[in-house]
Amino acid sequence: MNKAELISQIRQKKSYLCVGLDTDLEKIPQFLLEYEDPIFEFNKCIIDATKDFAVAYKPNIAFYEALGAKGWQSLEKTVEYIPKDIFTIADAKRGDIGNTSKLYAKAFFENMDFDSITVAPYMGEDSVSPFLDFPGKWVILLAHTSNQGSNDFQLMTNREHDTAFYEEVIRKSRQWATDDQLMFVVGATRADKIGQIREIAPDNFFLVPGVGAQGGSLEEVSKYGMNKDCGLLVNSSRGIIYASKEEDFAEAAGKEAQALQQQMEQYLAEFKTV
Amino acid sequence: MNKAELISQIRQKKSYLCVGLDTDLEKIPQFLLEYEDPIFEFNKCIIDATKDFAVAYKPNIAFYEALGAKGWQSLEKTVEYIPKDIFTIADAKRGDIGNTSKLYAKAFFENMDFDSITVAPYMGEDSVSPFLDFPGKWVILLAHTSNQGSNDFQLMTNREHDTAFYEEVIRKSRQWATDDQLMFVVGATRADKIGQIREIAPDNFFLVPGVGAQGGSLEEVSKYGMNKDCGLLVNSSRGIIYASKEEDFAEAAGKEAQALQQQMEQYLAEFKTV
Repeated sequence: MNKAELISQIRQKKSYLCVGLDTDLEKIPQFLLEYEDPIFEFNKCIIDATKDFAVAYKPNIAFYEALGAKGWQSLEKTVEYIPKDIFTIADAKRGDIGNTSKLYAKAFFENMDFDSITVAPYMGEDSVSPFLDFPGKWVILLAHTSNQGSNDFQLMTNREHDTAFYEEVIRKSRQWATDDQLMFVVGATRADKIGQIREIAPDNFFLVPGVGAQGGSLEEVSKYGMNKDCGLLVNSSRGIIYASKEEDFAEAAGKEAQALQQQMEQYLAEFKTV
Repeated sequence: MNKAELISQIRQKKSYLCVGLDTDLEKIPQFLLEYEDPIFEFNKCIIDATKDFAVAYKPNIAFYEALGAKGWQSLEKTVEYIPKDIFTIADAKRGDIGNTSKLYAKAFFENMDFDSITVAPYMGEDSVSPFLDFPGKWVILLAHTSNQGSNDFQLMTNREHDTAFYEEVIRKSRQWATDDQLMFVVGATRADKIGQIREIAPDNFFLVPGVGAQGGSLEEVSKYGMNKDCGLLVNSSRGIIYASKEEDFAEAAGKEAQALQQQMEQYLAEFKTV
């Protein structure tokens, strides 16, 4: 999916909601365990219930890998099931030397038809560029993440430019790819920083985790992070998919997604720059 | 496997060789494709031929993920097949927020019985610590990698301590775990740096990729990197496993592994500090 298509979807749905599919056998309604593939069954119901309110789905790959080969099959079926006009994100945090990154790209972009993958920047350009060789596919590079540990290295000051390390990641990586192929992960728990980051990356989309369970504010993220194209994909995982653990889990997920979409509609009217 | 057991194995075999199982369907002898699981069949033969000369095996997870659920099964069988007295490394470069890292740890330490996993440091302590909660298991943290892109961010100077970023990763992470649980990835192509890194991490093992195909020198790595326990696991992948593409591939791999072991025996006598 290209940037124009993503923006068009955001306009049409009046939403920049990404639903995180952190699907955990211990947390899904227990009656689903009777199905042959409970993970896929759960995802299918969640997707059906939320697809009118969401512009992206983000399976967290760890949840599938923790189930071995069977989990991988559930993941393949899930990606296949997501409607083609909705953006898909493999939240995998990969990144390795060139020939290895190329294989990860093959796994997520060819074998499965994900639109994008999250990538860790530590190993530099040649660990990122193999993902950029796939036309129409996106890299979502970790910049300033939502967890406590983001303070350990991401905020270190680089002597040469007197900037934080995460800023260097953004500045440098923007030379590797256009904003048609490159997004950044910017945690919602950093709403104070998101405005500064918007200044150095005016046109890139940001994938924003951390709203909800992790405590970030949707309003602040939207206020400081939005650009003329919206430029945000705000993720919610647990708040939506585990809204209920009963028979009505899908309906409850749909309601949560809709509530977020309605807030987003308001913020789009209020904060989107012209 | 604990540190004492690893050191004992190095003494016994007079080797610090790690064999990288970067097993690629396009590169293995083509007659193996007739087997039901060619990847596992290849790995089995390589392990049988090299196990007397190697103290560690390192499957590169991307090669298995690129084959989907089937690749994951080949990986599970391979780990199971490696003799229990040989150290195993999941070369996965994972790292995510706490609850997600925990699931990756479960995938590699519980579902499969890997001794260790390579982890990317960008997200900081709470992305690393879930792997350290598994007794007897190891984190091998990326410090200074062997690829060209390692220059992009790892060499940035941190203003506060006037040190390179990779040094900060080493200094900080050594507060999170003892050298019984924490190793570092230090590329062989950085032999000039390995002596300096040894000074700031005197007791940690280093996993050293980049000898062979990537151009690093085993002699220099050994000379500058060794400590009183040896303290090195030097990886070779392609040079060993693809030494021949014919019927004699396993025999050829065994010979390459033995040749490296013999050099290592010499360097252990020459460079190991007392």
